[in-house]
Amino acid sequence: MKNEVGITVTKEENMPEWYGQVVVKSELADYSAVKGCAVIRPLGYALWENIQNYFNKRLKKMGVKNAYFPMFIPESFFAKEAGHIEGFAPEVAWIEQKSKDEERVAVRPTSETIMYDSYSKWIRSYRDLPLLINQWCNIVRWEVKDVKLFLRSREFLWQEGHCVFATEEECDKHVLEIIEEYRKVGEDLLAIPTFVGLKSKKETFPGAKYSYTIEQFMPDGKALQSGTSHNLGQGFAKAFDITFIGKDEKSHYPWQSSWGFSTRLLGGLIMMHGDDKGLVLPPRVAPTKVIIVPITNKKTPELNETVLATAKRLQNELNDSDIETHLDDRDNYSPGFKFNEWEMKGMPLRIELGPRDLQTNTCVAVQRNTGKKQIVAIAKIVAQVPVILDTIQQEMFDAAKQKTDAMFFTATDYNSMVKEIQNKKFALACHCGNAECEEKIKSETGGITTRCQTKEEVKKGDVCIKCGQPAAYKIIFARNY
Amino acid sequence: MKNEVGITVTKEENMPEWYGQVVVKSELADYSAVKGCAVIRPLGYALWENIQNYFNKRLKKMGVKNAYFPMFIPESFFAKEAGHIEGFAPEVAWIEQKSKDEERVAVRPTSETIMYDSYSKWIRSYRDLPLLINQWCNIVRWEVKDVKLFLRSREFLWQEGHCVFATEEECDKHVLEIIEEYRKVGEDLLAIPTFVGLKSKKETFPGAKYSYTIEQFMPDGKALQSGTSHNLGQGFAKAFDITFIGKDEKSHYPWQSSWGFSTRLLGGLIMMHGDDKGLVLPPRVAPTKVIIVPITNKKTPELNETVLATAKRLQNELNDSDIETHLDDRDNYSPGFKFNEWEMKGMPLRIELGPRDLQTNTCVAVQRNTGKKQIVAIAKIVAQVPVILDTIQQEMFDAAKQKTDAMFFTATDYNSMVKEIQNKKFALACHCGNAECEEKIKSETGGITTRCQTKEEVKKGDVCIKCGQPAAYKIIFARNY
Repeated sequence: MKNEVGITVTKEENMPEWYGQVVVKSELADYSAVKGCAVIRPLGYALWENIQNYFNKRLKKMGVKNAYFPMFIPESFFAKEAGHIEGFAPEVAWIEQKSKDEERVAVRPTSETIMYDSYSKWIRSYRDLPLLINQWCNIVRWEVKDVKLFLRSREFLWQEGHCVFATEEECDKHVLEIIEEYRKVGEDLLAIPTFVGLKSKKETFPGAKYSYTIEQFMPDGKALQSGTSHNLGQGFAKAFDITFIGKDEKSHYPWQSSWGFSTRLLGGLIMMHGDDKGLVLPPRVAPTKVIIVPITNKKTPELNETVLATAKRLQNELNDSDIETHLDDRDNYSPGFKFNEWEMKGMPLRIELGPRDLQTNTCVAVQRNTGKKQIVAIAKIVAQVPVILDTIQQEMFDAAKQKTDAMFFTATDYNSMVKEIQNKKFALACHCGNAECEEKIKSETGGITTRCQTKEEVKKGDVCIKCGQPAAYKIIFARNY
Repeated sequence: MKNEVGITVTKEENMPEWYGQVVVKSELADYSAVKGCAVIRPLGYALWENIQNYFNKRLKKMGVKNAYFPMFIPESFFAKEAGHIEGFAPEVAWIEQKSKDEERVAVRPTSETIMYDSYSKWIRSYRDLPLLINQWCNIVRWEVKDVKLFLRSREFLWQEGHCVFATEEECDKHVLEIIEEYRKVGEDLLAIPTFVGLKSKKETFPGAKYSYTIEQFMPDGKALQSGTSHNLGQGFAKAFDITFIGKDEKSHYPWQSSWGFSTRLLGGLIMMHGDDKGLVLPPRVAPTKVIIVPITNKKTPELNETVLATAKRLQNELNDSDIETHLDDRDNYSPGFKFNEWEMKGMPLRIELGPRDLQTNTCVAVQRNTGKKQIVAIAKIVAQVPVILDTIQQEMFDAAKQKTDAMFFTATDYNSMVKEIQNKKFALACHCGNAECEEKIKSETGGITTRCQTKEEVKKGDVCIKCGQPAAYKIIFARNY
């Protein structure tokens, strides 16, 4: 039984295999017959919707509005910003031309160009700024051949914000506000320690002045870039002829930002929190917070009815208090089967209710994250459950933080740094900031990259861990997804 | 001034031109540089999000779950269901092949085939049924060249539900439940009279057993097909090898339904309710229900402060009561300019508040739909506004119903029917149900089609209005979008 429906490897011994099994067996997502593509199943999509709901509320407070732009981008648009086309050309999917009279179009790998063409029509005066727009959509990057569910696929879902400001200062400020919101999505909602920092020059978004990133550090020793916020400077404004008349009645180029995160966030969520029984979901993002499993017994049918009626009442009370609760009253599965299934799907809290519990007017609440059981008075359930859920959320973040922190070390010697990183560690080290030096590290180590700069200042005399030139910053080195 | 920012034609004299101006000038949507495609601007997208929120709640109650499937469909999938490929092949956009080793793929014109391929993996037993899945996504139908914003474009947004049932009865029931939900979206949310009925054989979805439709009838005498719900029978199950083991322990083909509506709903909304000042939004779908415009006067700056403070307080009280309210406190625009702007954008209720109103502790509430003004005590605003908004919603539906009803007539003579339809009317008439007869009407009249069957039974002796053969049903004839 276990070998069929449970996970057949441990997270420790083979994390890639474990990951694939968890995603498929918990019914988060599935492979598809279309090369490079995946299906997001209802449980996975509900997580994405919860991230959307959380983030949409934050965007509303910031005055950012959602919109939708065409998924097709004319060939000529890509060429308008030189750095941009260089970065994206190799991975673009093109539509077969039906008529040579129409320009060749690609499926969007990102939407800067198509959006900014509209912006150039809409923006006339300083009164039209800031223009703060976000879109939720699908994106295509064709180079992917082998799907890693949520982590790499030809098509994926994301949000992309594209904002326009009158001044550099406003743009800088917004880029930082967004990356801070991303950190909150990572830490407050998903309970994952989330590092914020600047990308190196080499890892900066094609066409951007600078890029901030949120990086999350997985138990298998690989970093996950989970969201980025770019200051695009005025390059796109010049390329797409976006100008505005300022209060000084003169024409100016505005400053622009773009920022995005994707369904990849779900990959981090699974890897960080999952265990050998399956998924473990932080309560804030879980679509169902509580699963009630009635413990019925064929020998006492009259008691079963009372158990089911009480379970139903508990479910209604919890749902009425906005705590999403599911009662698993299927009569063709055993309680043990149900326990396994909901553990696999990672629901944060299970409430067990049987005939004996009725005698004491209590039930048993079992935390998914730790397995901790506690007896709760039925009369106090609506007051107690939110407390337990908050505890779970905090415990999950703390556990993840402890795990992650233990994997960091400060490196001073290049060869031992490489060895430690191959051994699933994350290194803090000084680097010269030179793109060729960075590329050399990446190629000779088979994929060690810089993730994000730390705020720690480099001291005089600090030198690059690789080339010995003066250090530009202290940065995190890691393998990555 | 009026000629620049206002609408330069009346709805009566030139509805297509009026429509294009309303959509662009209210900033609902815009044309794009990409052929056949459009941009949905924040106001338009907020309407779509409100439709999504309304419908998602209904789906949740029905147990339908959202998911996401790949946008790319392998060429071989289209061919599996013969009726289906015939219907869609001409309008499909294909991706340029980068390697002959990979199968050619299309961008989805609808997702039956790609979804059912997954369903065949997921469905094993009667316990897996019903499978009730919906997705919100973008869709491409390449044949469109000239965009009509929200009504016709190469790419558009929609929802598509795809459900699987053990029995024909369950499938029939669900198809009807969905079309009833669609009617509610049309009538209860969008305040548009919405007719439900079966499509003729000729207009049935490619591959379906039968199709229900919701049809809405526009003031220019054209019908708008706004949503459809199909019983697909067992054809797709056979083509995609979807089978389940029943309680009888034998293998069976299930029954399937598919159903969808699109951003086209917004086109109907604009056409039905808009007037010569612009958009008119029913309160239930409007992203902002109330616009507060403070009437300030440069000569009395000390009073202005009190006006603004009171307006701010009103805004907070209304927002706290979940009535989305915007305070337009821009100081570089006159009240008159603001009135015009918010009338153009169709917001249901305007509250004007000036120094004189403060003396009587009242404000003026102005309905967008009728222009009706009423004086409301400031102390009663939170209680009164929901009542006024409900009145507006009902008045808008009633007005639309009256307008629509007056455009219907019962036809008994073919030539006069054609003449009346060309004269912006909708005809109820008997038809034989023969596809060739229907096609003949369409081609010889330049586009008169059947919309949906009525429930009225045909009597013995009733004959087809065109060919004189025995009538199969009474059906609505109209020109259409």
